Amino acid sequence: MLINGGCPKTALSIKDALEALEGRWKLLILFSLSTENKRFTEISKTVAGITDKTLSKELKSLESNQLIKRTVYDTFPPTIEYSITEHGRSLENVLNALHYWGLLHRQKILG
Amino acid sequence: MLINGGCPKTALSIKDALEALEGRWKLLILFSLSTENKRFTEISKTVAGITDKTLSKELKSLESNQLIKRTVYDTFPPTIEYSITEHGRSLENVLNALHYWGLLHRQKILG
Repeated sequence: MLINGGCPKTALSIKDALEALEGRWKLLILFSLSTENKRFTEISKTVAGITDKTLSKELKSLESNQLIKRTVYDTFPPTIEYSITEHGRSLENVLNALHYWGLLHRQKILG
Repeated sequence: MLINGGCPKTALSIKDALEALEGRWKLLILFSLSTENKRFTEISKTVAGITDKTLSKELKSLESNQLIKRTVYDTFPPTIEYSITEHGRSLENVLNALHYWGLLHRQKILG
């Protein structure tokens, strides 16, 4: 049985998490930023298949959920860099669990 | 640092998982089925906010990924019941991790 199977409070916290992380891109962007801070074009290169429009939208959503930080450096022209926050790093267990399940699922279904 | 930060192979397995679980509903449906087998209307009642059209689509997708099983009983009228499979139950760690992170996130952001 899954934890607190069917308990409405547990369902609520899972729903909170799924809403903050909705879609297939946010966790992949966080994963890409987990090694080093990156500029927009650098993220775009490491997250295969994402369009600039979607990346831009997802970065804003991640920033509003305090999962990443956007820093503007006073260079000429200005440099904009994205970094993962402590709160973003707290997703480590989620990424771990998804990684291992993804391996299992590929073996079973996509095999 | 997150596991194998930025490693393309790890990113691929995370992507596989996210594609199979895309959207905010699939994990909530699996969570609802984790305690007992349910009929369509019973699932609909426990997954707050889902429309019948979306539930129908999500059940088909979950079935094609072997995460749930659809059983038709030869009653009059026929009864259709959905149950979670072993492969569905293998998502326990993902649901656990999301549950704990959802609690943390609610505390931090939704407060």
